Amino acid sequence: MSDTKTPALRLNGPVLLQQLRELGEIGTDPVAGGRTRVALTDDEKAGRDQVVAWMRALDLDVQIDRIGNIFGTLPSATKDASGQMPRPLMMGSHIDTVVNAGALDGCYGVLGGLAVVRAFRDAGIVPSRPITVAAFTNEEGARFHPDMMGSLVHAGGLPVDEALDAIGTDGARLGDELVRIGYAGEMEPGTLVPHEYLELHIEQGPILEAEGLEIGVVENLQGISWQQITVQGNANHAGTTPTRLRHDAGYVASATVTELRRIAVESGTTLATVGTMKFEPSVINVIARRAVFTVDMRDPSEQRLAQSEARLADFLTKIAEAEGVRISTERLARFTPVVFNAELADVIEACVKRRGLSYKRMTSGAGHDAQMIARIAPAAMIFVPSRGGISHNPREHTDDDQLVRGAEVLLDVVAQRLGVPL
Amino acid sequence: MSDTKTPALRLNGPVLLQQLRELGEIGTDPVAGGRTRVALTDDEKAGRDQVVAWMRALDLDVQIDRIGNIFGTLPSATKDASGQMPRPLMMGSHIDTVVNAGALDGCYGVLGGLAVVRAFRDAGIVPSRPITVAAFTNEEGARFHPDMMGSLVHAGGLPVDEALDAIGTDGARLGDELVRIGYAGEMEPGTLVPHEYLELHIEQGPILEAEGLEIGVVENLQGISWQQITVQGNANHAGTTPTRLRHDAGYVASATVTELRRIAVESGTTLATVGTMKFEPSVINVIARRAVFTVDMRDPSEQRLAQSEARLADFLTKIAEAEGVRISTERLARFTPVVFNAELADVIEACVKRRGLSYKRMTSGAGHDAQMIARIAPAAMIFVPSRGGISHNPREHTDDDQLVRGAEVLLDVVAQRLGVPL
Repeated sequence: MSDTKTPALRLNGPVLLQQLRELGEIGTDPVAGGRTRVALTDDEKAGRDQVVAWMRALDLDVQIDRIGNIFGTLPSATKDASGQMPRPLMMGSHIDTVVNAGALDGCYGVLGGLAVVRAFRDAGIVPSRPITVAAFTNEEGARFHPDMMGSLVHAGGLPVDEALDAIGTDGARLGDELVRIGYAGEMEPGTLVPHEYLELHIEQGPILEAEGLEIGVVENLQGISWQQITVQGNANHAGTTPTRLRHDAGYVASATVTELRRIAVESGTTLATVGTMKFEPSVINVIARRAVFTVDMRDPSEQRLAQSEARLADFLTKIAEAEGVRISTERLARFTPVVFNAELADVIEACVKRRGLSYKRMTSGAGHDAQMIARIAPAAMIFVPSRGGISHNPREHTDDDQLVRGAEVLLDVVAQRLGVPL
Repeated sequence: MSDTKTPALRLNGPVLLQQLRELGEIGTDPVAGGRTRVALTDDEKAGRDQVVAWMRALDLDVQIDRIGNIFGTLPSATKDASGQMPRPLMMGSHIDTVVNAGALDGCYGVLGGLAVVRAFRDAGIVPSRPITVAAFTNEEGARFHPDMMGSLVHAGGLPVDEALDAIGTDGARLGDELVRIGYAGEMEPGTLVPHEYLELHIEQGPILEAEGLEIGVVENLQGISWQQITVQGNANHAGTTPTRLRHDAGYVASATVTELRRIAVESGTTLATVGTMKFEPSVINVIARRAVFTVDMRDPSEQRLAQSEARLADFLTKIAEAEGVRISTERLARFTPVVFNAELADVIEACVKRRGLSYKRMTSGAGHDAQMIARIAPAAMIFVPSRGGISHNPREHTDDDQLVRGAEVLLDVVAQRLGVPL
């Protein structure tokens, strides 16, 4: 750092890969494979401690807020007109996982951010505005609801006291668990409003791999509609009840799944998934009295998502009448689509082009902390390919060179935004 | 019986109804309702003891065979040319139940048979051939497989030693349980080959009630095809996997259910039911990796049943190809349709007409002991209406006057076959 000539920014790929491996070793499951670092468990505390240690090794200012979000900040040289430090350029994601997860989901965004900061440290460059790396609490929602909780609280979408009172699937109170693991910070959530936010992430889908592309420039994120649908019919004998006299809850549920495929295909943009399905009484020769299933619908366009929801509702009305069953629908979640900042997406695209990488502008199918931060700051995301589209699974994989390439793009974007020559 | 003038045969309805109530009290479940007399349990032993006591009260010859079938015989006056008692006219059914059953399924056929014998006793008429009332072991198959076991063994369709070795859902051996409850008889199964067999039963379906009819003249019994189908696809993220790249086991299973309805409607005679359906991993935002479901198909025509099976197999081949999934099919059961004895059915119809009752000739949708006995003797069945078609349920119900009417028809048919003037 005392060299007379400032070296150019250069991403240290081996350190990034090594840290991904080391963090991925915390909470490993030797039997089922992968690692399990569910939010605010002992294993996740160990992961947090490791990340904080790496932040301190880079001499970052580490701050913890009341919901347990971790922020590591490389300060800027300059203050603004009012003598305040300028708002930070923030990068981040999360380090909590689902059960038997891969090593990359979330961690790649946090450690990719640290890799960018490391490049500034290695080059001895003090940035024109602070650079903050954030690890948000409970993105996965595997233990506490809602998911994306830390970023949601940070963005002011959920009062922190309400979040602290969340009760986990194991009966534990979130606030108590934060105290227990030593991550109940004092900073008020939302204190560090970013100037801009960037999130580097694996795609968790098969599109980039299928199209042979290296980078996804994520310009928006799908709206999500989750419903649970209950069909109440009559349990009758499979051998003695004529088809016309049936009130078959299982048939109605199945016909709805079939119709949802039609809705998805005809809309062209809606994705529709029925991942859970239960019949009662679940006996081979008894017509199902009751069927309960969930519907996950997504679309980047709010108008088309609402259209697909309406088509489903219309179908349910008609088939309930035709089969003589009662259908009730419970809304489990509804997020309108998020459009990321176009200027940031353009900068990402320009950086990708400059490196001669193949890419596409694309939609994020999954939810990410970036969609919460987008409420309070310009935000965008960078995707790298996921092999087979697999995530939330020990088989989650992205090649090392793809991981390094994505972090290099992130570094380029940060450099560009902070006026550092590339 | 010593009257100089023989009174006419008259069915004692109140005693029949009282015995149905008394037998129905054995094994009642005060919490879930109904009664549970699963084959060869203590409660079923209590039911057997009650039936045997009633047989003895009518001074019948009670015989138990090695599979535990109970036969109560009213001897005839005459012997045949070889000095043997003629083959009996047999009536029967079973008294074992499913869990939380109604009071009528099976019991009505046994106690209806006793009511017929009682009419002969009351009238002091000694029949021209023996009249036997049979209570067959384990018709329901709720604990030991296969169902209709006692009548199947009786008809020579299953070696008795194999049946005795059946292991129950609770791990018990059937032969040991027979010994334990005192119903391991010494008579070789099949000793009492009936001259003719009649089974009185509730319909267990909604047809008679829906058409406002009093009696069903059962002339045949559907063939049954049971399959378990497993679809193996890929679990991928619901939000990131384009529809065209999905290998959705849940969709394929659901589309199959939808297609089965089409097969049933288009065939006109096939019934198709999917009563069980399981998705894995059963997560709202994960495409189902695996779906397992059962198919119950029935048709009175073997040719049309086979056609419907072939249509299903064809559909599975095509959709497996289209969606890129693997489908495997396991055959769980297959019975060809049974055609009952036309002459017996004609006699039943004539007796019904003579009483001025409304009726239809119909197909039994469920399986019954009569289908096994039909292998060794002319057999037919008489149905009375089931309210709402409900059976295997505490809400199983037939009005008292309908129950008595059915038994009166049975008595008329027996009288006609034995040459007793009506």
